[in-house]
Amino acid sequence: MKALVYHGPGKRSWQEFPDPALIDPTDAIVRVDAVTICGTDLHILKGDVPETTPGRVLGHEAVGTVVEAGTGVAGVRVGDRVLASCISACGRCGYCRVGRYGQCLGGGGWILGHTIDGVQAEYVRVPFADTSTYRLPDSVTDEAALLLADILPTSYEVGVLAGRVSPGQSVAVVGAGPIGLAAITTAKLFSPSRIIAIDKAQARCDAAKDFGADASLPPDERCAEQVMAMTDGLGVDVAIEAVGIPETFELATRLVRPGGHVANIGVHGKPAVLHLEDLWIKDVTITTGLVDTFSTATLLRMTAAGRFDSGAFVTHRFGLDEMQDAYDVFDRAAETGALKVALFRT
Amino acid sequence: MKALVYHGPGKRSWQEFPDPALIDPTDAIVRVDAVTICGTDLHILKGDVPETTPGRVLGHEAVGTVVEAGTGVAGVRVGDRVLASCISACGRCGYCRVGRYGQCLGGGGWILGHTIDGVQAEYVRVPFADTSTYRLPDSVTDEAALLLADILPTSYEVGVLAGRVSPGQSVAVVGAGPIGLAAITTAKLFSPSRIIAIDKAQARCDAAKDFGADASLPPDERCAEQVMAMTDGLGVDVAIEAVGIPETFELATRLVRPGGHVANIGVHGKPAVLHLEDLWIKDVTITTGLVDTFSTATLLRMTAAGRFDSGAFVTHRFGLDEMQDAYDVFDRAAETGALKVALFRT
Repeated sequence: MKALVYHGPGKRSWQEFPDPALIDPTDAIVRVDAVTICGTDLHILKGDVPETTPGRVLGHEAVGTVVEAGTGVAGVRVGDRVLASCISACGRCGYCRVGRYGQCLGGGGWILGHTIDGVQAEYVRVPFADTSTYRLPDSVTDEAALLLADILPTSYEVGVLAGRVSPGQSVAVVGAGPIGLAAITTAKLFSPSRIIAIDKAQARCDAAKDFGADASLPPDERCAEQVMAMTDGLGVDVAIEAVGIPETFELATRLVRPGGHVANIGVHGKPAVLHLEDLWIKDVTITTGLVDTFSTATLLRMTAAGRFDSGAFVTHRFGLDEMQDAYDVFDRAAETGALKVALFRT
Repeated sequence: MKALVYHGPGKRSWQEFPDPALIDPTDAIVRVDAVTICGTDLHILKGDVPETTPGRVLGHEAVGTVVEAGTGVAGVRVGDRVLASCISACGRCGYCRVGRYGQCLGGGGWILGHTIDGVQAEYVRVPFADTSTYRLPDSVTDEAALLLADILPTSYEVGVLAGRVSPGQSVAVVGAGPIGLAAITTAKLFSPSRIIAIDKAQARCDAAKDFGADASLPPDERCAEQVMAMTDGLGVDVAIEAVGIPETFELATRLVRPGGHVANIGVHGKPAVLHLEDLWIKDVTITTGLVDTFSTATLLRMTAAGRFDSGAFVTHRFGLDEMQDAYDVFDRAAETGALKVALFRT
């Protein structure tokens, strides 16, 4: 088969790769029908994620068809159309048993395209298929389902729920890429009074407005002051970090009011400075996290009901064989205006 | 009157100072009957709290007798024996009205011995007397009440409650000074399975055991490894920082397990490094905070019922005129073994 292989920082190729095979009885082999590229894949290509070693097939967001299932798989069958989620879950460890699948100790967690070969390929082995895939109803298109593999549950769980967005609150979303836009989309489920999007790209600021942000700003030296002016001088109730660099995290901690929350979604490769000399007295809560996907089934029902506009996220469509072009377009988002790119089996 | 006056980093004197007078109708003048020194006062003397300017009377933990009350004071009367809490609360601003008195926007918050003259004096002006003092029952001694002015509510609210200590959990307390010991005391109210105290002073490690810690360790290079060995290799559910320097905060973030909480109580004068390259994926919640004192009335009831052993905290007793000696003993705690020092009007 063909697959997108990571060859160390800055290097990737769409190349021949051995077909996956069942290893454990709980595995399924899924033919990839639709797949997308995540900002996290770009972090890996920058070298920010050292656990991902050269030779690895990337990708953790796909929709596909089960072509083979191990003897221990009971919930999905050959021929089923499924979502392959970014999180695999053994379903049995202490973390899985309390719904914290992202922290799975039984061999799951974020493994696809991270510590095992991922979904940017013609076929993929999905471990723990019963607890790591979701059967898709016909009413949900492949393209809409792709958003459920990572960005919607991640933004919702790690941004909106961890940040405790509540009715009437003010929310800043630092970074208006796909994750930031998904955070705006899912924050609105809680009826905040004001959402302020912050991004250095004007096109992403405009997209944020289209997604429902009330205001947008660049992250320049006047940013914090402008946010204070919009929020009674105190800052926002919730600041969601959706980039993954020290500067944007530090900005988020400056935008939050006393008693507020900073919810970090970004994948970070470097430490940040935490200004405890200012923050110790401010009753600030900072959360980090990997998505658990406990919300995926709920978000899938909402998708089936037409609650999310997937067409607004997906700006570029490709055939699976155009993987390298799709990466180029996604990596140069500032120029190309790319949000989510989707690739389909042809 | 006499008062302890801050004269810039490293400098303090017990000296003549103008008697306080009523300024606002909601003020009371309190004669100080018992007072203590806080680690925060030492942070001020190190120059960590730039808002406290030279010429300021320090101190924010006292028990006294009301000698004068403004026309707007309705809840306490001349002659009442009261606790003067570290937090003053206007009672009317948005933060006060949701019980977040520490973040008071109406002129309160932590002001005594910080931005207005404090209680290490023969007399003190207490603003917002109705919502900043607590009348004391006869069954609570001055010495026991002193612990309610700051350390018990601070450790309980900012450490134990913010850190969400729950039955069966493992807890690390970094720093076994008075705040750390109060965190151990109040953590035990939630029946954790194991409390690990960490302090470089053996005497404080021993004190921590006396207060109910199950184990104690120095914060050396083997500390994190030893904590992992005591907690299934994953770390503690809750790490409470009770020192206020970057090293101890950073240690706390290394001790916490995925999904765990780091509750910072320490007063910090410098930034810390936040290792987001490790933490982004770990579902960690970090909280900072100033005490709100919403728990003071509850802790006072528990004190009246004999639930806390104040004698275990107070190691050294002085007359009020021995303020400088008391500071010397408290500041050299590593040598003197001082935990809480108490000074009484003679």
